[in-house]
Amino acid sequence: MSDEDQIRELVAVWHRATAAGDVAKILGLVAEDVVFLRAGQPPMRGRAAFAEGTRAALERFRIESSGDVQEVCVSGNLAYCWTELRVNMIPRGGGEGSPRAGPALTILRKAGDGRWVVSRDANMLAEP
Amino acid sequence: MSDEDQIRELVAVWHRATAAGDVAKILGLVAEDVVFLRAGQPPMRGRAAFAEGTRAALERFRIESSGDVQEVCVSGNLAYCWTELRVNMIPRGGGEGSPRAGPALTILRKAGDGRWVVSRDANMLAEP
Repeated sequence: MSDEDQIRELVAVWHRATAAGDVAKILGLVAEDVVFLRAGQPPMRGRAAFAEGTRAALERFRIESSGDVQEVCVSGNLAYCWTELRVNMIPRGGGEGSPRAGPALTILRKAGDGRWVVSRDANMLAEP
Repeated sequence: MSDEDQIRELVAVWHRATAAGDVAKILGLVAEDVVFLRAGQPPMRGRAAFAEGTRAALERFRIESSGDVQEVCVSGNLAYCWTELRVNMIPRGGGEGSPRAGPALTILRKAGDGRWVVSRDANMLAEP
């Protein structure tokens, strides 16, 4: 697979693993020093903090998500991916879901084993 | 100057030009096909749309902004820059400013003439 195809596959795997609640699978897609950025919150730094946040979210919510990849651009071991996301977090205890939509701009790098991993992520989800 | 120093200088020039209301200077820092992404709004595509938006904003507001560069990463002709921004838009007609703060994740590429320009920008400013 080309680098671009590998990155598009990573995005698809991410959404499937999220729907399945497969935290271990998701964690394999991010760098140890990953940073997640979003409005109104401090940066979430590192795979361990992300793991904790993801586990907590998946305990409380079933997450339906999809992403339309708008663009992938690769230069050497660095790449970015712009995705238009739709996410719905459905409380496991019952109740209405919280649909969100918007873009994400994700930085990826090629790890030593040749696999691409997410290293920085800018999340711009908002209520529709 | 190293690529990283050129990119840090671009960020500094951007904020000085914004404070000075120097639209021509700002436009020289972005790619023709630049895309600005933010929550709750469609992507702003292209230098012409950005020019129109910037001119309209600077007619109505004096913009004080600053950015602390957290990280610059370069690979070949592609780079990203994570900046923590503070922006205050002060109505020229009088009245309270609207302070905003938060991260931006910016993609840059090296143009044919060797200068770095902004090609994608993820804006995560929020009310403090």
